[in-house]
Amino acid sequence: MRLLVISGPNLNLLGTREPEIYGSSSLKGIETLLQTKAKQENIELDCFQSNFEGALVDRIQQASGQVEGILINAGAYTHTSIAIRDALLGIQIPYVELHLSNTFAREPFRHNSFLADHALGIVSGFGVMSYTLAMEGLLAHLRQIN
Amino acid sequence: MRLLVISGPNLNLLGTREPEIYGSSSLKGIETLLQTKAKQENIELDCFQSNFEGALVDRIQQASGQVEGILINAGAYTHTSIAIRDALLGIQIPYVELHLSNTFAREPFRHNSFLADHALGIVSGFGVMSYTLAMEGLLAHLRQIN
Amino acid sequence: MRLLVISGPNLNLLGTREPEIYGSSSLKGIETLLQTKAKQENIELDCFQSNFEGALVDRIQQASGQVEGILINAGAYTHTSIAIRDALLGIQIPYVELHLSNTFAREPFRHNSFLADHALGIVSGFGVMSYTLAMEGLLAHLRQIN
Amino acid sequence: MRLLVISGPNLNLLGTREPEIYGSSSLKGIETLLQTKAKQENIELDCFQSNFEGALVDRIQQASGQVEGILINAGAYTHTSIAIRDALLGIQIPYVELHLSNTFAREPFRHNSFLADHALGIVSGFGVMSYTLAMEGLLAHLRQIN
Amino acid sequence: MRLLVISGPNLNLLGTREPEIYGSSSLKGIETLLQTKAKQENIELDCFQSNFEGALVDRIQQASGQVEGILINAGAYTHTSIAIRDALLGIQIPYVELHLSNTFAREPFRHNSFLADHALGIVSGFGVMSYTLAMEGLLAHLRQIN
Amino acid sequence: MRLLVISGPNLNLLGTREPEIYGSSSLKGIETLLQTKAKQENIELDCFQSNFEGALVDRIQQASGQVEGILINAGAYTHTSIAIRDALLGIQIPYVELHLSNTFAREPFRHNSFLADHALGIVSGFGVMSYTLAMEGLLAHLRQIN
Amino acid sequence: MRLLVISGPNLNLLGTREPEIYGSSSLKGIETLLQTKAKQENIELDCFQSNFEGALVDRIQQASGQVEGILINAGAYTHTSIAIRDALLGIQIPYVELHLSNTFAREPFRHNSFLADHALGIVSGFGVMSYTLAMEGLLAHLRQIN
Amino acid sequence: MRLLVISGPNLNLLGTREPEIYGSSSLKGIETLLQTKAKQENIELDCFQSNFEGALVDRIQQASGQVEGILINAGAYTHTSIAIRDALLGIQIPYVELHLSNTFAREPFRHNSFLADHALGIVSGFGVMSYTLAMEGLLAHLRQIN
Amino acid sequence: MRLLVISGPNLNLLGTREPEIYGSSSLKGIETLLQTKAKQENIELDCFQSNFEGALVDRIQQASGQVEGILINAGAYTHTSIAIRDALLGIQIPYVELHLSNTFAREPFRHNSFLADHALGIVSGFGVMSYTLAMEGLLAHLRQIN
Amino acid sequence: MRLLVISGPNLNLLGTREPEIYGSSSLKGIETLLQTKAKQENIELDCFQSNFEGALVDRIQQASGQVEGILINAGAYTHTSIAIRDALLGIQIPYVELHLSNTFAREPFRHNSFLADHALGIVSGFGVMSYTLAMEGLLAHLRQIN
Amino acid sequence: MRLLVISGPNLNLLGTREPEIYGSSSLKGIETLLQTKAKQENIELDCFQSNFEGALVDRIQQASGQVEGILINAGAYTHTSIAIRDALLGIQIPYVELHLSNTFAREPFRHNSFLADHALGIVSGFGVMSYTLAMEGLLAHLRQIN
Amino acid sequence: MRLLVISGPNLNLLGTREPEIYGSSSLKGIETLLQTKAKQENIELDCFQSNFEGALVDRIQQASGQVEGILINAGAYTHTSIAIRDALLGIQIPYVELHLSNTFAREPFRHNSFLADHALGIVSGFGVMSYTLAMEGLLAHLRQIN
Repeated sequence: MRLLVISGPNLNLLGTREPEIYGSSSLKGIETLLQTKAKQENIELDCFQSNFEGALVDRIQQASGQVEGILINAGAYTHTSIAIRDALLGIQIPYVELHLSNTFAREPFRHNSFLADHALGIVSGFGVMSYTLAMEGLLAHLRQIN
Repeated sequence: MRLLVISGPNLNLLGTREPEIYGSSSLKGIETLLQTKAKQENIELDCFQSNFEGALVDRIQQASGQVEGILINAGAYTHTSIAIRDALLGIQIPYVELHLSNTFAREPFRHNSFLADHALGIVSGFGVMSYTLAMEGLLAHLRQIN
Repeated sequence: MRLLVISGPNLNLLGTREPEIYGSSSLKGIETLLQTKAKQENIELDCFQSNFEGALVDRIQQASGQVEGILINAGAYTHTSIAIRDALLGIQIPYVELHLSNTFAREPFRHNSFLADHALGIVSGFGVMSYTLAMEGLLAHLRQIN
Repeated sequence: MRLLVISGPNLNLLGTREPEIYGSSSLKGIETLLQTKAKQENIELDCFQSNFEGALVDRIQQASGQVEGILINAGAYTHTSIAIRDALLGIQIPYVELHLSNTFAREPFRHNSFLADHALGIVSGFGVMSYTLAMEGLLAHLRQIN
Repeated sequence: MRLLVISGPNLNLLGTREPEIYGSSSLKGIETLLQTKAKQENIELDCFQSNFEGALVDRIQQASGQVEGILINAGAYTHTSIAIRDALLGIQIPYVELHLSNTFAREPFRHNSFLADHALGIVSGFGVMSYTLAMEGLLAHLRQIN
Repeated sequence: MRLLVISGPNLNLLGTREPEIYGSSSLKGIETLLQTKAKQENIELDCFQSNFEGALVDRIQQASGQVEGILINAGAYTHTSIAIRDALLGIQIPYVELHLSNTFAREPFRHNSFLADHALGIVSGFGVMSYTLAMEGLLAHLRQIN
Repeated sequence: MRLLVISGPNLNLLGTREPEIYGSSSLKGIETLLQTKAKQENIELDCFQSNFEGALVDRIQQASGQVEGILINAGAYTHTSIAIRDALLGIQIPYVELHLSNTFAREPFRHNSFLADHALGIVSGFGVMSYTLAMEGLLAHLRQIN
Repeated sequence: MRLLVISGPNLNLLGTREPEIYGSSSLKGIETLLQTKAKQENIELDCFQSNFEGALVDRIQQASGQVEGILINAGAYTHTSIAIRDALLGIQIPYVELHLSNTFAREPFRHNSFLADHALGIVSGFGVMSYTLAMEGLLAHLRQIN
Repeated sequence: MRLLVISGPNLNLLGTREPEIYGSSSLKGIETLLQTKAKQENIELDCFQSNFEGALVDRIQQASGQVEGILINAGAYTHTSIAIRDALLGIQIPYVELHLSNTFAREPFRHNSFLADHALGIVSGFGVMSYTLAMEGLLAHLRQIN
Repeated sequence: MRLLVISGPNLNLLGTREPEIYGSSSLKGIETLLQTKAKQENIELDCFQSNFEGALVDRIQQASGQVEGILINAGAYTHTSIAIRDALLGIQIPYVELHLSNTFAREPFRHNSFLADHALGIVSGFGVMSYTLAMEGLLAHLRQIN
Repeated sequence: MRLLVISGPNLNLLGTREPEIYGSSSLKGIETLLQTKAKQENIELDCFQSNFEGALVDRIQQASGQVEGILINAGAYTHTSIAIRDALLGIQIPYVELHLSNTFAREPFRHNSFLADHALGIVSGFGVMSYTLAMEGLLAHLRQIN
Repeated sequence: MRLLVISGPNLNLLGTREPEIYGSSSLKGIETLLQTKAKQENIELDCFQSNFEGALVDRIQQASGQVEGILINAGAYTHTSIAIRDALLGIQIPYVELHLSNTFAREPFRHNSFLADHALGIVSGFGVMSYTLAMEGLLAHLRQIN
């Protein structure tokens, strides 16, 4: 089994950008943690980050037929990108929406998500652990239905 | 360490009520699962369900000084109860909001939550597993900060 | 055949509370009238009133498997209770929403109903007769489909 | 005593138009049923249908001084016609608003009614029976007050 | 010079409909008064009333090239008819919007007008005199610019 | 009989300010015209203009017991001043709201009026003639009821 | 194969009404053009225009079982008529919504359409050519599916 | 003379819950203070607190015919309970709405009150003193009118 | 200790203006009452009334360094004046907002207050007594904290 | 004559992505069809697709002075991109907005278009044929005016 | 060349009022600074401050024909005064809107400006320097076009 | 000291795109002007333009630790990009938002800015001079605080 982990704009700044909101781990660190966990679970994992909306759309499209599930932290694009929504719906692979921070504790324009209504599930507010909880939940779902 | 698991109105119907949305486990079954997991984690767990808004407020108040974290699936009261919000804020114990179903895939009046903006984190859409993921996330948070 | 008649908050005041809106019959009087009519129709009838939202939820849940239809005048909870809505949907018994007064002739906050979109039908504005018309309509529906 | 039954646009299609919403009776059939019932009640009944807003206004105006009550199913004009509202208010005859389907279970633009706040009562969702229940309710009201 | 006076739905009821709002003159009486005044002013006057939106549109269209100004009291259609607005704009003849009652002292849905923003002027609230004031204002305007 | 004519902010600029909207007459010219007309009608007329909201409130208060009707063109304060509204209601003298231009043909913030719902009548869009039409309408009303 | 072309209020003014928006062809001219094109395509064509909402509803109902597709330019009723919407849905014949002008380049109240969400397709802004493009598109669709 | 003092959800936590907002007095302390003051004023006082909406409704109903005025601090239910509003209106006893904190200095959902528009008066923001000021105001009102 | 009592537009009409809303006391009478009470409390009191927004701003500014608290009944300016709000915030002296009538029982545009969110407390609906209750509450607050 | 055909995000997936909405043709296939038609019409055609908003802006800018008309199916960016709107307006070349599906039959967020109000015309809902109809309409317009 | 500098309500408090928002310079100091700069630029400068909306309107009107440009910091009246807007438009002199603080970083009611849409330009957030930057920008504009 | 000047989508068209709005200078010309001014001020300046949202995010991130202030004219992305907002907040360098045109004199969708509430200051409407005024304001701010 293979999963894809997508991280959106400004997540490459993790560890340096507003650490009181996003914590002190770097994206590198998170991806290493996830790879370790993936090995234990005996699955393969692709990780991808970009600040470009179009690049995220491209990467999601390429996942078609290659992975069985997607973890996506689309950052600011969560709230503005119908293009990413369309890409996810276009390839019909289950995905989990995740956020490091609790988006409902922040500015009102972060309360809307173009990804939420078609997501398998949503996890937010647990910092780095949002990634691992989302991966657990996605795996459990996939193993039940495959 | 001791945690409290709160379930709100109609969750006592689990397993029989609209199973295509809520799954086929009973609340009893979920609580047994959580107790098993609690033993493994070496913690104590109180479980409480009520259809009364006032009873949920009472139970939350009594938790003051007795537990270190709360898992709350407030059901329909999530969307209407300022009283439960106030009770949770009044006792100042970290809590995780959880839902069996993905509330954003349902009616618009379920998109608003009076509990979300002060929650430690949110987990929704994973069925019974929403409870266990929420417990993991809460525990990890508490162990870091205590 | 057995039906349940539910009356919500402040309906126990009937006959004394704002008679220019609600008429001069007492709830007792209405229930006696309905029982008479039920005998003529050869059916059984349970009547229940409470000012507690949770008690109404409980009573609706207990109706599961016991009655074939519900007449509900939820009073003020019509406009605020998602819990009662969920209880009615959870047991999947057809129900008719009824009101003594015409709610659209009153304050704007009485124009919204959390029960209306799933009701079999709605009757309002006929005073005590709203109860008997609703019962006729419900019976006709049940006899057609059972 | 004489009553007027008004049916608005597209109700002449009854029995052929979207039967899963409106049922399989024709308007003819409904009017025959009502006439039978009228005879039993010893009253006279005028029935009128038109797809023209202006024709409905004309017909309502002519009822002034001729009938003692009106049953009106204004169909789509319920949601858009202030002119029909004004005609009903202008002649000051009590009227009951009725619908075959439960309008609150349908599109949002059917939730508004320009007739509801001045109606004696409202009946919706009982199919053909909405007509007969509305007639019963109206008669009971008129006999009490005349 | 020739003017057209248009009266919309339910204005044929004048004198009998809600006299506390609309006064006790009949439409006939108003039109006679206007004809007298027209003779004094040495102009010709056409008067037209209908309860049909389409008939009002037809009549406005026929005025093209025949009259130099229009007085329009569109009644309830003031608030709902884009078709009448389009007809008035299509023939490009100056018009005055008038109302017997002060529409801002009534229900909120009477505060919007689809005719107001392109009218030469607006007169409301003076009862029958709204017609004569509107005619004076329109004549003064036309005599200045022709 | 004595009337008061009130003109609000920037109306002292009439004749020089945006003549394509407000016409080329000065306020002086309008008041002379009104005085002539007043003499013909055998009434007395007080005229007052100020750019100060408070001065307008003061002047309206002083009118109590001295005049029998008010013509008010409150200019920009029409849309923002609850204080002027309160002054007019406080002295309980009938008033007509008037505007030189058609306010509904202009910016949306000019569509709201804090004076309209209690006015006897409204006249707008006829330039200087709005003043004389308003005076005619007010006089006719006062002579009928006194 | 037979098609129906429906034109709504004020389209009989074409060529004379606001030519900078609607162009200089008359409705007659457009219908002749469409008939020529229909002959080439070997189909029959019925054309109908009315300024009456009710007449349009009548004509649509009569089309049931007689035509295989409808081209509708409902003019101003596009934005206000639920009755026409209901008639089109009632007969279940595919239809194309068309407009001479680009409705989105005009007033906000022309941006809403009660017909659009159930239309096969929409064509607007090409003047007379909107009719012929709409006919081409409808024919292509019908020939594929019949 | 006898008054009733009603306190709603979470007010039993007073003194321990968020003291920077609600102050350090316990509800017990407040009630003792009020009883002292009542003795000085030579009146009787009943005090009641509950976290249940239904219990508050019950208690208000029982007050009918027993007390001459009510002081009510409905806490969070102020903003959500139509049932409590109906109970207060049903018994037709003058009441004062009070709050310890200034609700307008807090979250937007605390700015709406279902009790305010029928209250005799409102007092908020003075901490414990809100109770005593409200009592003074209520007494003065009652002594004037009885 | 010295306090300032500010009264806004139209309050100089007290006793003559709409007595069914504002009572029959004159402003003079109220100020005399407050001076008497001030003497008992051993404090000094300045009273000021104006119909000019600018004059109220001037007076509030002059209070800086001279008084320790302000009672303000800003009348209609409560709902429209950001300038008065800014003046109050600029001098940083605690103030109580007060109203003779219950503003929530009146027109919707009186439900908003630009002063409420920074006020120490709010008192409304007790007629003249609103002034004395507000003074008591303000004094109690100042004596505790000075 | 030369035209430009622009296709936005996810249109490169055509034929595989949700074929029940978008049909089974590939973008390649559509472009071949358009080139054939272009040859018949004796014009040249450039085709361009990208998932990047910035790349679409770049390509539109480069069209300045090179093409005489643009067909644009901006996909999801239709609803969110002011930058593409600005690019189209900046080069002042007439363009037609087109969509394969009927956007009004889909989610509400697809009902808004930042391109529509300045488009020459709009075609939607005809699948692949939307492209050819749009090209016909654009050509007819250009040949008339060049 | 001569310019006018207008400062609105509460700006006379500068240096003492909320210095963390508005800085520590007095209005006197700012005006001296501007006069120095004016001498260097060889222009004349009139400065005016008032807390009265009417006085600001008066002063703006007097500027007609006397100055060639206006710098206006209308303070709180920026957000509420249509009268000041009308005065500025009435004299048709270019003006720059300026603010010491960044109004978008403050309360929502400061985000609206009745002056912005007709201003030549806007400068905000630079403290005292907002005045000098605005003067530079205005001068550059005037020298180019005169 | 080093500053960064960022220009967003379509600004590379300056001088050719809609010159009546944006003026006739090219972006090249503006940047040369700014470099000259920078030399006079003895600072270094980096200039960057892109039509890609992601490229702008990247460039802002790289500025971290390299520049002391940013001038940003984000063009159309001002109104839609939360990603650019997040990038600016992430690196915590003061920035000034600037626009060539007065955005409040244009379409409503240009009135919202995702950058304004955290900007140091805002300058708009002065054409090219908006850049130089913004630079002056930024420099003055930086020199005061460094």
